[in-house]
Amino acid sequence: MVIELAKDIYSGPGPYKVNSRGILLDPQRLLDAHPSRLDRRLLEGLHHQSVVTVDALSRRSVLELSRFAAQLELTEVSAHHPLDGKLVITAFFEASTRTRLSFEAAVLRLDGKVVSVQDGRMTGVAKGESLADIGEMFNTYGDLVIMRHTDTDAMDRIRRNLQLPLINAGNGTGEHPTQALTDWYTLLKWRPALATPALAETDRVDLGVVGTPMSMRAVKSFLRLGLTFRHALRSVTVVSEMADPFGAELRDELESHGIDVRVVHDIKESLPSFDVIYMNSIALLGGSYRQMDSRFKLHAKSPLKPGAVILHPLARREELDRGLDETPHNLYFAQAASAVFIRQALLICLLGRLDRIPTRS
Amino acid sequence: MVIELAKDIYSGPGPYKVNSRGILLDPQRLLDAHPSRLDRRLLEGLHHQSVVTVDALSRRSVLELSRFAAQLELTEVSAHHPLDGKLVITAFFEASTRTRLSFEAAVLRLDGKVVSVQDGRMTGVAKGESLADIGEMFNTYGDLVIMRHTDTDAMDRIRRNLQLPLINAGNGTGEHPTQALTDWYTLLKWRPALATPALAETDRVDLGVVGTPMSMRAVKSFLRLGLTFRHALRSVTVVSEMADPFGAELRDELESHGIDVRVVHDIKESLPSFDVIYMNSIALLGGSYRQMDSRFKLHAKSPLKPGAVILHPLARREELDRGLDETPHNLYFAQAASAVFIRQALLICLLGRLDRIPTRS
Amino acid sequence: MVIELAKDIYSGPGPYKVNSRGILLDPQRLLDAHPSRLDRRLLEGLHHQSVVTVDALSRRSVLELSRFAAQLELTEVSAHHPLDGKLVITAFFEASTRTRLSFEAAVLRLDGKVVSVQDGRMTGVAKGESLADIGEMFNTYGDLVIMRHTDTDAMDRIRRNLQLPLINAGNGTGEHPTQALTDWYTLLKWRPALATPALAETDRVDLGVVGTPMSMRAVKSFLRLGLTFRHALRSVTVVSEMADPFGAELRDELESHGIDVRVVHDIKESLPSFDVIYMNSIALLGGSYRQMDSRFKLHAKSPLKPGAVILHPLARREELDRGLDETPHNLYFAQAASAVFIRQALLICLLGRLDRIPTRS
Repeated sequence: MVIELAKDIYSGPGPYKVNSRGILLDPQRLLDAHPSRLDRRLLEGLHHQSVVTVDALSRRSVLELSRFAAQLELTEVSAHHPLDGKLVITAFFEASTRTRLSFEAAVLRLDGKVVSVQDGRMTGVAKGESLADIGEMFNTYGDLVIMRHTDTDAMDRIRRNLQLPLINAGNGTGEHPTQALTDWYTLLKWRPALATPALAETDRVDLGVVGTPMSMRAVKSFLRLGLTFRHALRSVTVVSEMADPFGAELRDELESHGIDVRVVHDIKESLPSFDVIYMNSIALLGGSYRQMDSRFKLHAKSPLKPGAVILHPLARREELDRGLDETPHNLYFAQAASAVFIRQALLICLLGRLDRIPTRS
Repeated sequence: MVIELAKDIYSGPGPYKVNSRGILLDPQRLLDAHPSRLDRRLLEGLHHQSVVTVDALSRRSVLELSRFAAQLELTEVSAHHPLDGKLVITAFFEASTRTRLSFEAAVLRLDGKVVSVQDGRMTGVAKGESLADIGEMFNTYGDLVIMRHTDTDAMDRIRRNLQLPLINAGNGTGEHPTQALTDWYTLLKWRPALATPALAETDRVDLGVVGTPMSMRAVKSFLRLGLTFRHALRSVTVVSEMADPFGAELRDELESHGIDVRVVHDIKESLPSFDVIYMNSIALLGGSYRQMDSRFKLHAKSPLKPGAVILHPLARREELDRGLDETPHNLYFAQAASAVFIRQALLICLLGRLDRIPTRS
Repeated sequence: MVIELAKDIYSGPGPYKVNSRGILLDPQRLLDAHPSRLDRRLLEGLHHQSVVTVDALSRRSVLELSRFAAQLELTEVSAHHPLDGKLVITAFFEASTRTRLSFEAAVLRLDGKVVSVQDGRMTGVAKGESLADIGEMFNTYGDLVIMRHTDTDAMDRIRRNLQLPLINAGNGTGEHPTQALTDWYTLLKWRPALATPALAETDRVDLGVVGTPMSMRAVKSFLRLGLTFRHALRSVTVVSEMADPFGAELRDELESHGIDVRVVHDIKESLPSFDVIYMNSIALLGGSYRQMDSRFKLHAKSPLKPGAVILHPLARREELDRGLDETPHNLYFAQAASAVFIRQALLICLLGRLDRIPTRS
């Protein structure tokens, strides 16, 4: 493992480059740490699947998709036209820049095509059209649907008739599974050992989640997908304004997995113990955004553990101060940069085009 | 003519497959019933034409476009890149999902390109730009324009300067000619004899139209294009809330064609006599949607004639109960699935690319 | 130099064709007047540059880009796939039809790809996302950003993190440099001598600008880029409702260039002296449009100098009467038609793809 430190930079404690944009991750480190051949059978098994919740993703599939994404980061694959002839429908019935553009860029870079609904208000929905009927219609238009919606039950409704693979790009207070996939891909590039079943005690992390999973779908999906990596988590702490930030269902799930999640209402005491901090402060409530947990602010002078890294799905407000951007705690820019690649890996698998990619042995 | 009945299904009375998604149409039946070579001269004559009303379409051109569309359904033509190098402008100044995406999917699947206005409010129109000036501008941007607008006179206004072929995708209470083309393509696949000048009496149909043509452009275009198939219509009945659902102009046109259209204000008596029922309940009034004729509801227990089929351009509200989806009366899902292909046939002709397609002899 | 006058037309005084759509410019005349080889080194120097104000453009680069654009008008270059593999982000946080579609058509015609934000309200901005963070995100999505925004400082804000070339497509009351480039490209095609350092006195023009540069970004950029052509301007007159239509900064700039710009508040007296009239009447104020200077109206009976030409970036309201469309004063339709080509020339240079184009010797 090569330790490279850029010259103009903060020298972070880890074996990775850090510059004024935060941590620069090298996908090769993930491949070196997990050098076996890509499990093509597992990835091919994703063909024509939908990803509506993180339940569609096992720890093994997260690792294989991550290793595939790392290869895509390191190789120019556009010459192979991986999604040639495939038409993806991006149906965003709720506000988005980042997620929609990230998916569309992912598709177009692979030579697929896109038709897009950018604004649900400008659709037949205004005429009372049901999602079930929209699903029926989508069957004849494209090969895969990526949908975001303000209603948590929107995915179930469109699936009544939809026969295409569906990616949930955010449903109300439900889930945002490809954000979680991006988050864990980023963490695996940062510390590849997290995917190792029996990892060294020094590689395990104390995880702090600042936010309210019950109301924040990105936080919920991150935490639920994190359950599959629980062997790598020394402790999990949720910092929230709410007395019960989980809701019955998620609490039951955590308990049934034997995860002891500590809940605290003040960030001060626990902050210095976290190796990884996952932040979010925006919750969708009734079709508009509400800022929650905004009293938990991080800035360059916060008592962060040396080497601690911060993830944030962005957009951010004041909870994550810009002063942190230029520190080695900034893993969130690397996280943003990972989104296109892991989504490309997923799209190639769901659309059955793995055979177009000459994956490395 | 082969009678095929799927095993897991309702056995409809017609010679077509039916499953839980309603009637499954086989495009080959249309080709078998009308086996002559495609009239390429007629189709080539559409090059650089506009389709603003159904007047642009003769019975002969509807049949030829339908047979061409049937071939497109049965053949993979993307390898021939039929619209390669052609740029289509979809300008939707009025809400749409179905129609815009259907056209864009049609273009992209044929390897054409699309620039799109999804929301008229987000345009120079907000600065007072006239449609005539927008037309002038479009001349330099693309090769064909597909426009929808809340104003009935919008097509005339843009054509003041526009020199490209124009497809009207719905103009106020005006027309929606490609919806009518989709409707009749669906009917021709369902009963190919409808296009035969001297058809058997048993092949003729009693047509019931539930809606108000004067206010509903899809209904108006369906009915007006239906005039060219009047030899195949034993009777035409309009079921409407309005005393005069036509308006002077359409009434004159019907009379001048010697069509005796009966108007009824109650659906009960006439429903059991209809072979084909065309429904719509949404009218555009002053820029927003109004539901009309909603007291005429169809559901699985309505006294439909055995073998009767229902068309609906969708979106629907309560007037067409979901319970009908799984019956052999459901021709509306097949109708939705037909839209992309007939639009592809039309686009290929308007853009003069018929020579790219190796049509069957 | 060939004088060609179409038959069905007004015979304008100039050596150019005129028909019912106004003046028809022949790009070949520009190439004939400036026959040297294209300065590829200068154009290649634009690679990876941003164009946020007209300061990015010298007189020499305007001429070279114009000559390159003229070649693009005369040659079919799509077969060379000049922007193959390049992904352009069009981020329009303020209303636009003309500019966005013009850029997108330019990109797609060159075989580039586009992801698009058509409506800023439908984005993460609604969640409080900063432009700086959006810039960070764009780094990982595309190769070049074209942005329009209601805020004048928006370009500075996104450039905090953005590492891609940025084209300003209009920022509040700031600038609209590619509109100015289109304007001057049009003028150079109309009178190629304007780019000649020592031009004949008869080729110099009296320029009238109807509008308020301080509030109208297109007017400001036109005037500022005009400074580089001041040798060709016999006089510059600004016709405005405002006592001081410039604001301190622009007035200082004009003075420091030794430009004596006359300001008048009535158009009557000076109109007959203008060779070129640049009009605009729409100013963006606080996120919505306000019509200014609308009492200065031009119509077919206005006392225009014979041979005088009118430019207008459009959209227009009543200030520019439609009756002028069919006169040889109408250079604004030719101006609209020039936009795609000069933007293609610019995009090819910024994206470093000049080598794909077999430019004429």
